Amino acid sequence: MLAAAEVCNSIEMIRRQAPVVHSITNYVVMNNTANALLALGASPVMAHAEEEVEEMVNIASALVINIGTLSASWIRSMFKAAKQAAKRGIPVILDPVGAGATKYRTRTARELMESELPAVIRGNASEIMALSDDRSTTKGVDSADLSDNAVPVAQKISARYNCVVCVSGATDYIVKDRQIIKVENGHPLMARVTGLGCTASVLCGAFAAVEDAFTATVQAMIVMGVAGEIAAEKAAGPGSMQMHFLDALYCLAEEDIKLRLKAGG
Amino acid sequence: MLAAAEVCNSIEMIRRQAPVVHSITNYVVMNNTANALLALGASPVMAHAEEEVEEMVNIASALVINIGTLSASWIRSMFKAAKQAAKRGIPVILDPVGAGATKYRTRTARELMESELPAVIRGNASEIMALSDDRSTTKGVDSADLSDNAVPVAQKISARYNCVVCVSGATDYIVKDRQIIKVENGHPLMARVTGLGCTASVLCGAFAAVEDAFTATVQAMIVMGVAGEIAAEKAAGPGSMQMHFLDALYCLAEEDIKLRLKAGG
Amino acid sequence: MLAAAEVCNSIEMIRRQAPVVHSITNYVVMNNTANALLALGASPVMAHAEEEVEEMVNIASALVINIGTLSASWIRSMFKAAKQAAKRGIPVILDPVGAGATKYRTRTARELMESELPAVIRGNASEIMALSDDRSTTKGVDSADLSDNAVPVAQKISARYNCVVCVSGATDYIVKDRQIIKVENGHPLMARVTGLGCTASVLCGAFAAVEDAFTATVQAMIVMGVAGEIAAEKAAGPGSMQMHFLDALYCLAEEDIKLRLKAGG
Repeated sequence: MLAAAEVCNSIEMIRRQAPVVHSITNYVVMNNTANALLALGASPVMAHAEEEVEEMVNIASALVINIGTLSASWIRSMFKAAKQAAKRGIPVILDPVGAGATKYRTRTARELMESELPAVIRGNASEIMALSDDRSTTKGVDSADLSDNAVPVAQKISARYNCVVCVSGATDYIVKDRQIIKVENGHPLMARVTGLGCTASVLCGAFAAVEDAFTATVQAMIVMGVAGEIAAEKAAGPGSMQMHFLDALYCLAEEDIKLRLKAGG
Repeated sequence: MLAAAEVCNSIEMIRRQAPVVHSITNYVVMNNTANALLALGASPVMAHAEEEVEEMVNIASALVINIGTLSASWIRSMFKAAKQAAKRGIPVILDPVGAGATKYRTRTARELMESELPAVIRGNASEIMALSDDRSTTKGVDSADLSDNAVPVAQKISARYNCVVCVSGATDYIVKDRQIIKVENGHPLMARVTGLGCTASVLCGAFAAVEDAFTATVQAMIVMGVAGEIAAEKAAGPGSMQMHFLDALYCLAEEDIKLRLKAGG
Repeated sequence: MLAAAEVCNSIEMIRRQAPVVHSITNYVVMNNTANALLALGASPVMAHAEEEVEEMVNIASALVINIGTLSASWIRSMFKAAKQAAKRGIPVILDPVGAGATKYRTRTARELMESELPAVIRGNASEIMALSDDRSTTKGVDSADLSDNAVPVAQKISARYNCVVCVSGATDYIVKDRQIIKVENGHPLMARVTGLGCTASVLCGAFAAVEDAFTATVQAMIVMGVAGEIAAEKAAGPGSMQMHFLDALYCLAEEDIKLRLKAGG
């Protein structure tokens, strides 16, 4: 799973099959995430109306639910879509944006996680920690420790809900049961572009359309990180970073990944 | 209508008059389409609340309705705005995004088309075909034939609703009654940037503010294609493509169009 | 307040503290304004649901309310958030986008202004003028006079509501009681990029998190203008303008500001 060739094999499959990834996501990032999917080779669709989400799920190969800008009717659609995805057996990726910041988000994220089991949950350390009541594993609040704290929480969530949990940050941790893969690709400038976390989640969706959820998440995080590194080398700031990132996704070749891959158990 | 000079004359008028183009459109592309209108020289406004759409139509020179991310209250506003546009006699451009993908979209697009006659309907082949029950002209489902199949459907819609229908794709077909113009400008990379179809529709709105609907649609599609070609020559991928596309729209000169124009009856 | 060093001092504080700026804003610009805040060094959050806005205000250092794409439930959230911001004593920036264009916007902007006093109101001349019934100071409708006309209106609003009013345009006027500062930085290409006015408002929010409202607004407008000038020198059109603008915000150094600063009483 960690060989560059296998990542590229998945990219090739995405480019050939152009899987439809249905996103119910926040207003801030819709454009970016649609563009990232197109750049990678997948086919984005966005639809949030209760009247049509189920039908849209029916033509999709993966569903991405992102709670970044919630409201009541959108939440109803998220549950409907998740239920339909479960029925069809397509993978659901949950991005609990801002879980922990407000009760509304924390509660919605947890209810989504519990009602229909997502295949993948991807968030930053504090979002993942907000999904669990269990703070017994917390070592402290020092932000440097945050990811370390989140990993045991991620393991418990993974075990309980039988899903992949990805704690993303300077190092990304992809957890499933007893397995942990660390991806150390990426660049600090990525944190200065809005929606790259959300972009990671839709890429998980694209990869999950052609691979098992664990492999897909690892590959998506590698691709994010490598494209981010390539973009950062050309960027003069976050504006050009976003642009080069999409170009890098589109141009990504096996050599780029082979050269840069920093991932392991 | 196909002389570069006449296209440029319309661009000049848009730049001088800065016509207000009111869009009720999807969340994914709002930013891009507003930027494309500004780059061309028009004045975008976006407003979707039932409380204000009629008043906004009153200050607009064209109305663009795009069903890319629907919900009930937005649909009500679309009908209200279309009615007010009809009353004022300003052109309405309908972009039936995703018609055929869900019943909700197909039905909404058809009802919009039937309630107040749009001046222009612009969509890809499958969207245009979804607007008609008549599949008798369909030759097959091979995607290569898709545009060919859609053109007879476009002709019937045009005849029945007395409107311009544009089937866009590698070749764009602009149909009105017995007239057909083909525009062969453009570049495959355009399909890797989200919202360039929606952008074509708002440009139809800008041109329809200064020209008759048929001429306007032909000119808009030429301008899209030429700007796309210029951008593609500079682009390293879909990220830089989007950027160069806006720059090209802004800088478009008669020479560019003269040199590249590939359109005819 | 007008020394480059002081502007840079505020930027330094923003970069160090990364103040959370909560925006309830329009769909068109969300991505751009979030990116501008990130590029400057602040932390954007967006949340519009009545269920969570108050809690989100509780973690914010400034609240920006932008009425660019209104609807009933968003308006209710704006009032709720403004009330909570007043309770907590954090500054509220009001951007009355399109006030004057429809009654709905004019009324909403005025009611927001009157219910909880904003710290800063920033709009273009016609928006600011729409906030007041008093046209006695109006000298004419010549667009060249528009800013001149708006300044006396701004002064009255400032006096009555005890807030900073910024009339932005080729020259920006920042008004508080008897004080007026003019900022002459900026570039005409900025008007061809959607949402740079809205971006100015969120930057006012970021600066107001670390400075008094008047100083903050002046500094924000200087930073907008200087970054705009730097970007315009590199831009080939509005597409690259947007990109270079974000890069310039990110890279802004004391020297840039010292060299370019054109502001005074």
